[in-house]
Amino acid sequence: MTQSSRTWTARVISLFPEVFPGVLACSLSGQALEKGLWGLETIDLRQYGIGKHRDVDGPPIGGGAGMVLRPDVMESAITDAMSSVSAPWPLIYLSPRGRPVDQELIAMLAAANGTTLICGRYEGLDERVLNHFDIAEYSIGDFVLSGGELAAQVVIDAVVRLLPGVVGNAASLHDESFSSGLLEYPQFTRPTMWQGKQVPEVLLSGNHAKIAAWRKEAAERVTRLRRPDLWRKYRATS
Amino acid sequence: MTQSSRTWTARVISLFPEVFPGVLACSLSGQALEKGLWGLETIDLRQYGIGKHRDVDGPPIGGGAGMVLRPDVMESAITDAMSSVSAPWPLIYLSPRGRPVDQELIAMLAAANGTTLICGRYEGLDERVLNHFDIAEYSIGDFVLSGGELAAQVVIDAVVRLLPGVVGNAASLHDESFSSGLLEYPQFTRPTMWQGKQVPEVLLSGNHAKIAAWRKEAAERVTRLRRPDLWRKYRATS
Repeated sequence: MTQSSRTWTARVISLFPEVFPGVLACSLSGQALEKGLWGLETIDLRQYGIGKHRDVDGPPIGGGAGMVLRPDVMESAITDAMSSVSAPWPLIYLSPRGRPVDQELIAMLAAANGTTLICGRYEGLDERVLNHFDIAEYSIGDFVLSGGELAAQVVIDAVVRLLPGVVGNAASLHDESFSSGLLEYPQFTRPTMWQGKQVPEVLLSGNHAKIAAWRKEAAERVTRLRRPDLWRKYRATS
Repeated sequence: MTQSSRTWTARVISLFPEVFPGVLACSLSGQALEKGLWGLETIDLRQYGIGKHRDVDGPPIGGGAGMVLRPDVMESAITDAMSSVSAPWPLIYLSPRGRPVDQELIAMLAAANGTTLICGRYEGLDERVLNHFDIAEYSIGDFVLSGGELAAQVVIDAVVRLLPGVVGNAASLHDESFSSGLLEYPQFTRPTMWQGKQVPEVLLSGNHAKIAAWRKEAAERVTRLRRPDLWRKYRATS
């Protein structure tokens, strides 16, 4: 990642801007936010609402339950959110219909100058808006949330820890799950004997080559067992 | 789901209990929490820490960056968290090494009396603890977060909206992504003409059979395009 003179910034369009920074205010991401290592701007969708009641949604055309966010309202919010950004600055809509978020996407976002994240609610966005602004639709997983705010916080948290200076020991980022295409190997700490269970002998041996070999084999085993999809990809490329 | 006389409760073990309920305090999940439709209990891992500094972690045995949560400390927290629970009450550890969380798991958790969620931090849990308590390891996606708190909030949000009485119009739950094995069809709302783009003619026709057929085909198309994995599963079972 080339170090930019700009601060990576998350711009979030939401009907619930008050839930930010939320979890992001604590621990590493919170300290980094205070230090100015990244920025957070929320855009309240409600302020673009129409009429006295500031309506932001309407019933689905063609029938069905729930409400859909209006294209004209969303247009005003997106236009504001994308003004004065310097490319690369992806525009993302978080929705269960999207392509899966993975560590590769996170690294791509971290390398940009910032990212605008649209949080859906109810039945989501009008399809015309997605096409008009060429919005990338991404999903954090095969489950349905009550809104995109948590998904946005997930994406931001994952991005922020990759930004320079956020994780104290950058070496922690190298061995973790997905960085090698494998899940991470099992970890152990003291006490070395607990509940009659000792940590594996080899880890106490001080023999770095043997430890590395044991960890690689253990990582391969857990990946094969739990994630046959990742395992196939790993086998095909290594 | 059989209606239980008990209130579904999330019990969360975390070093950052103050970030709960966070996003869960707003909108549907927040209203439902206030109405007592679900419960939330946090267990501060720090209070089980050892010595004057209440240490909860130690360096990885065998070397490597970061810190691993101690098995003895986690044991005390888990023992407390699983006391006085009435089965079924799953015990889950959120970690990128886990099996993927999907809507099926969410429905299973919603049908239980409650769930205990362990939020990892740093390099995660000692492997012996995972085996000793037979903890189910689950991941919300192929990316790495700075801790399990956001993942826990994601799981809780997804579960809570399935609980009786939380989503006003239960019909909203039927058409959504994954309920049919397909991603959701595109949605449109007023204005019917926006930026020179009209909503698809058929949706304005009032012909319910034609609308249903159009939506099914559109849902199949987006699933095939974005999620070949889901598409293959859908084709194999329908």
